[in-house]
Parts: sequence; C-alpha cells; structure tokens
Amino acid sequence: MSVVSTYLKKNRSKHLEELKEILRIPSVSTDPAHKADILEAAKWIEARLGAAGCTRAEIHETGGHPIVYGEWLGAPGAPTILVYGHYDVQPVDPIELWNTGPFEPTERAGKLYARGAADDKGQVLIHVNALEAHLQSNGTCPVNVKFLIEGEEEIGSEHLAPFIKKNRKLLACDAVVVSDTSMFDKKTPSLCTGLRGLCYLQIELTGTKRDLHSGCFGGAVVNPANAMADLISALKGKNGKIKVPGFYDDVVKLTRAERNSLASLPHSDEKYRREIGAPALFGEKGYTTLERVGARPSLDVNGIWSGFTGEGAKTVIPAVAHAKISMRLVPNQSPSKIARLVTDHIKAIAPESVKVKVKNLHGGDAWMASLDHPAIRAAGRAVERAFGKAPVFNREGGSIPIVATFSRVLAAPCILMGIGLPDDALHAPNEKIDLSQFYKGRDAAAYLMEEIARG
Amino acid sequence: MSVVSTYLKKNRSKHLEELKEILRIPSVSTDPAHKADILEAAKWIEARLGAAGCTRAEIHETGGHPIVYGEWLGAPGAPTILVYGHYDVQPVDPIELWNTGPFEPTERAGKLYARGAADDKGQVLIHVNALEAHLQSNGTCPVNVKFLIEGEEEIGSEHLAPFIKKNRKLLACDAVVVSDTSMFDKKTPSLCTGLRGLCYLQIELTGTKRDLHSGCFGGAVVNPANAMADLISALKGKNGKIKVPGFYDDVVKLTRAERNSLASLPHSDEKYRREIGAPALFGEKGYTTLERVGARPSLDVNGIWSGFTGEGAKTVIPAVAHAKISMRLVPNQSPSKIARLVTDHIKAIAPESVKVKVKNLHGGDAWMASLDHPAIRAAGRAVERAFGKAPVFNREGGSIPIVATFSRVLAAPCILMGIGLPDDALHAPNEKIDLSQFYKGRDAAAYLMEEIARG
Repeated sequence: MSVVSTYLKKNRSKHLEELKEILRIPSVSTDPAHKADILEAAKWIEARLGAAGCTRAEIHETGGHPIVYGEWLGAPGAPTILVYGHYDVQPVDPIELWNTGPFEPTERAGKLYARGAADDKGQVLIHVNALEAHLQSNGTCPVNVKFLIEGEEEIGSEHLAPFIKKNRKLLACDAVVVSDTSMFDKKTPSLCTGLRGLCYLQIELTGTKRDLHSGCFGGAVVNPANAMADLISALKGKNGKIKVPGFYDDVVKLTRAERNSLASLPHSDEKYRREIGAPALFGEKGYTTLERVGARPSLDVNGIWSGFTGEGAKTVIPAVAHAKISMRLVPNQSPSKIARLVTDHIKAIAPESVKVKVKNLHGGDAWMASLDHPAIRAAGRAVERAFGKAPVFNREGGSIPIVATFSRVLAAPCILMGIGLPDDALHAPNEKIDLSQFYKGRDAAAYLMEEIARG
Repeated sequence: MSVVSTYLKKNRSKHLEELKEILRIPSVSTDPAHKADILEAAKWIEARLGAAGCTRAEIHETGGHPIVYGEWLGAPGAPTILVYGHYDVQPVDPIELWNTGPFEPTERAGKLYARGAADDKGQVLIHVNALEAHLQSNGTCPVNVKFLIEGEEEIGSEHLAPFIKKNRKLLACDAVVVSDTSMFDKKTPSLCTGLRGLCYLQIELTGTKRDLHSGCFGGAVVNPANAMADLISALKGKNGKIKVPGFYDDVVKLTRAERNSLASLPHSDEKYRREIGAPALFGEKGYTTLERVGARPSLDVNGIWSGFTGEGAKTVIPAVAHAKISMRLVPNQSPSKIARLVTDHIKAIAPESVKVKVKNLHGGDAWMASLDHPAIRAAGRAVERAFGKAPVFNREGGSIPIVATFSRVLAAPCILMGIGLPDDALHAPNEKIDLSQFYKGRDAAAYLMEEIARG
C-alpha cells in the first residue's frame, strides 16, 4: 500500500465529516430563497481547496451563482488536470418522502443519505481529498491540479461556458476530469464515454380568463388541462417514438459494434425493473434498455399542474394548464434546433381555442469520448487499481452539457470517472452515496493523478 | 306596491348586512380544517331562521356536516313549500387571483364579492327575507314554509338523501323551492327546468417506487405523467365526443321542440366567448353551445398534478401522477353506471407499465321538470312580477343532485328559481352576486309564496 492510500485510509472519518459539513448547506440553485446558502457553499469549497493545499483558491462572481477556482501548480513539466464539479444541488420535493432531512446527512448501513451526497458534493470531494493525500504524504503531487467547481449545474450552467471561454488560459489543461456520473453497478466499475444532451421546455396553455364552473361551461369550452393531455400525448407514439417532425434527423445511429458492446454488459431487465419498482419496462421499439437510456433520445414530462389539486371534488374548469417537458438528446442533436422543432410542433397541433406559450428553460449538447485517448486509458488503470477490476465503458443517459464545451473550448479530452451507483436516487428523495464508493473513489482520484503523469 | 315589497325595500341594508355576516364565515365543506367554520355557519342559519319568524329552527347532526331545519306552519290549509339551499361553499384556490379576500365581502359597482355570495348563501337568504317580510308586514304568510339548509352540497350531499328519506313527514310539502342556479342573463329572467348530473373520479397512476432521474432512466420506463396524458387524451375525441364505450347509451336525445326553444334564447356565442375570454369556443360536434351545456354530457379535467411544479428545471421522472376528472351527465345517465364504464375503460387502456387506481369521489343524477305543473307556472308569475318580464325556461349545465331525490322521495315538484347571473364566477376567484338580483330575488321569493297560495 502506497503512502497516499495509507493517508486516505487514515483520514476516512476526517473526509467523511467534511463531506457532511458541505451536505448540511442547502445549496439549491433553482430556488432564489437559497441564494445565501449557495454563497455559503461556494465559500466552503474555496476554504476547503485552500486547506487541501491549493496555492490559489478564489471565488469568481458571475451573473448568477459564483464559480470556485483553485489550483496547485507545483509540478512544472508534468501534465495538468482540471477537475470540474458542482456544489449546487437539486430541489428536495417531494420533501415528505425523505426518511431523514435532506440537509441532515445521516449514515445508515454503509450509506450516507443527503441531497447532493452523490450529485455532486461527494464526488467533488474525492479529488480534493486525493490532492491533499499526495501533498500531505509526499509533499508534492505527480500532476498539476486545477479545480473548477460551479453552482449552476442543476439549472443549466448558464454562466459556465462564457467563463470557460473567457478564461481559456487560466483553465488550460491536458485533461478534464469530471466525477458526476455512476458506475455501471457496484461490481462493475465503469468509465462513462457518452452523455446525452438536454432540451427542457415549459408549456403554458390558457383557455379562459378565469376558472370556470364545470357545470355551467363544461362541454362548451376547451379545458386547457384536457388540451395539455392531448398535446403531450401527441408528442410520443405507442411505440415509444417521438412524433415531432425532424426530431430524429440528426441522431447518430448506433453501430453494430456499440450494440454488441452494450449487449455484453452485465445488465438484467428484470433486476432493473425490480430495483425501480415498475410493473413493466417500456421504451422505444427496437432498442434494448441500455440502448434506450444511453444512445437514444427520450421525452418526459417532468412536471404537470392545473386546476384543483387539494382533497375532495372541486368542479372547476381550470383557466390555465402548465407542463415541464424535457428531451434527452444524443450526438448530434442540437438542443436549440430541437427546441425550435418541438415548439413549432406544439404550436401547430394545439387547438385554436387555447393560447400557447412555450419557454425554453435550458439545453445542453450530448457528448462522446474517444476510447483510445491516453487520458482515457490512464483513467482505466486508475479505476482498476482502486476497484480491483478493469472498468467497462458505458454511455450514460444523463446530461452534463458542459462536457461538450470543455472538449471544444479547452481542446482537452474529458474523463468521466463517476463513482456513484445507479440506485443513488439522484434528483429524488433519499439521495445517498455508498461510503465504500466514496472511500474507493478517493483512491481512484489519487491513482488517476499518478496514471496521468505516467502518460 | 304591496306592504311586503315596501318592507323589503326598507330593509335592504339590514338584509345586506346579514348576508355579509354569513359570508364572513369560511364554511368550506371539502376541507377538514374548516370544521369549526361549518358549525358556526350552521348556527348562524339556525339563529337567522328563528329571527325571521320560524317557530321551529334546529340543527340536525349527520355523519358529516349538520343540516339546519326551520319551519313556520301558521297557515293551516294553505300549501306548504320547502326551501332547500346550502350554507357550505367551494374552496378558494387559486387564492392569489382574488381582488379582495374571499371571506371579506366587498361591494364594488353594485356587486358584492365573496365566496358563497351567489352559491348559495345569497340565494338562501332571499327566502328567509321573504318569510320575514310577510310575517313582519302582514303578521302571517300565505303559505307554510319549511327550510332545509345543508352543509355538504359542494362535496356531494352525502348525508342529505338519507336525511330526506328518514324525515319524509317532517319535510312533506307541495313544492320544493331551490335557488342555486343562474338566470339566463340580467335582461332575461328564467326558470331552470333541467340540471345535469355528475360523476367525479380521481385517477392515480404509479410508475415506479420513487422519482427517477430523467437522464439515467428516460426512455426505458413509462413516465406516469405521460401515461396520464395519453389516458386523458384517449377519453375524448377531436370532435368533442367522449370515447368511453357505452357512455352515450342512456342519453335522452334532444327533441326538435327543445332544440327550437334553446335556439330562440337570446344567446350570442361571440358574447359568451368574450365574457370568458376564450380564444375560441369548442364542443361536441353537431350541437350548439346551449345544447352542449344544457343537454349533452361533458368530460373535464378538474385538476392534474405530477412531478416538479416549482420554478426552474428539475429533471425528474415522477413516480406518480394524479388527475381529477368529472363528467356532467344528462337524463337518463346513471352516475354509478358511468363511473363503472369509465373506470373499466381507463383500466383497459392504461399501459401495463403503470399501476392504476380510480376512486369514485361523488356522483348525482340529472333532472328535468314538468313545465305544465301549477307550481312551475306559479313560479313563472312570481318571477315576472319581480323582474318585470315573463321568464324563459332553460336547462342548466350544473348539477344539484339532490333535486332528483326531492322529486322522487317527497313526490313534490321542484321549482328552480335561481337569481344568480352567468358571470357570478361560481367556484372561481372573485365570486359575486349582483345586489340588484339579490334585492329583486327577495321580491320574487315573497311573490312566490303568494302565487303558490293562489294555486
């Protein structure tokens, strides 16, 4: 065992306590009421970077939530990695389904429960802990390390891309490292080599200027909630295909090799179904579950609301109906083009008896890695050393829109070394991180620094 | 001018103040939090009946909210009328759209704004005021008068029908008088000769045991909110026809005479459309607006909710989706048969990948009057005396399920002498009653007592 891994083993409870500290800060980025918590979380990260050994750690104001930058550049001539992550978290609704408070990190059976545990505070800290381990045990680190930790990932990273473009020099690096994804499963370490993009829209249909009595008016006016149902239903066919004209035009087709590779992964539909508690799985006809979530676009209602939602029976025709819908995109779909296609289609099929508003809430590009890049191979070795098994390569269904920006603007390969697990309940009640993943993740991050230096 | 109408004129502000008193009591029947307010409203009605001259006024407990009974039987040999109404009100959501507090009755431009102003507190009081006027000005009343004022009309009158059946003798009468409907318009006094029935269901679709990240799972599972949209959309065709097998089987068809009579009413689709602020009207193909709301069944979403409904973009696949839907029924549709047909159809068309629950929240029969009954003709004369114009007969789209029960159990004709107006915003924000309608309504109620006595 190396001095670095010995240090990490000795400092498990220190690192766990630090994780709990940041998890107690309710840094929900979408809600203006949490503005002060966002600032507190940014300051906590800044201080933690300094304490870990960064020689520079600072908060950069943006038009939105601040970005934290840190660096340790004490290895001239060695490669430089840029660790990207985010300190903001998703909202906690429905709060009543949490077993313990979302901002009261609680250990149960080897897992730590809290909003942000896996997404992404726990995964940010593995790299901070790794740098600290190298500096504390060896007095140096095999690579130069930069940190870029933002506060708007959960709301579309609006100010990050401009920041990256404006600070190309500050952020220049040989590889970008992102830990914001999951491993294939606990027994199958993996590296993520593809991400889906996102197009998120909000639809508002207005029927009348006020709510109407469903007895006096029922049958003579369009009910915007019924119209919303018609509209959403018309967007997807019974075969799971999205019915917006042009939607699939730019989709990069799965190759035979990729399909074979996905088919060889240790996936069981039945286990997957049981784990999420669905009566049956369903998706686009002609594709497997792993293909559907990794390599095919999707369309989901994320929220819908209209009319009376309390106890009992209120006989009202609502004046307005709202829905949030989002599409996960795959390479080469353009979020802005898709937003336009879907918006146009919605306006074309909505009945003339409702007013239609569609707002583009946010979007992000899909991304694919080059599997034969030395940085990806280095990451493979680091994961194998930490988890005892060579990682498989898989494509994630989620979106980290900024990954495409990193590749493009910094001209550096991206390593998506996520150490979460599929049952982490990201964005849902009772989010958690497995402590064994957190501890081994720190090892993997420390080894990655060594392997990248090795080339 | 008779002594009775002189009395009513002199006592306008007294009666208005009393109306405001009862409107200040937030007797929302659907919400258990308002239990004490319900009791307070019942006691207020009991006291008011006594003050108006009832020789018996009492509160009857039920399994739910209490029923208030009152009587003045000082005219032996004269006919007896039973005035039915309700002291409970609809919820106030969306509260933010009220210009003044729903329980702070406010006069503006000849109208009194408050929840319950027209539905039904204002319309109950016209009859109480009428009895008071007869007794105060003549020392007697031309008919015997009974009052039956319940507290569960807005939640389905669950305990009223059993009460009526158990108290046939107490409630025995020659005519039931109900003021809980609207006139055709301010210039067209009307009597309501038909009401729609109701079948109100709540649907719950469950996809998975927890909310899912739409990136990780989007495309591989059924989203219950999408499934709910599909389901609701499948219930009604583009031509406005309800697509549940058997739904129209028992519908009594409109006769040529009825269609001609409805067509002769002073209705303008354009005015109707402008008044509710709809971009365009829409309804079942082959029927006019008045036919659609009066004589054809309808199906509306009254509420729908699922997933994230806050600010911003949360990328979640909700575990559960909810909807409240209700059907207005026409003679001879049976609410329980319709509930069964719709529930079976929903279960038949829902995908196997969601769990389906359908709850029957409440139902009520539709009703039609015999236009040539002496009591209906007496009501016609009373309305003509008060409003200066013979009333037209029209069919209301709303439901007062208990009306069918009255006809059946008490074997007495029902007079639906509503003095509301179509723009009263029943069940919606800014409910109001026109004070001129309230004042003339008291006259009509007093004249009705005279005209019924005349036979």
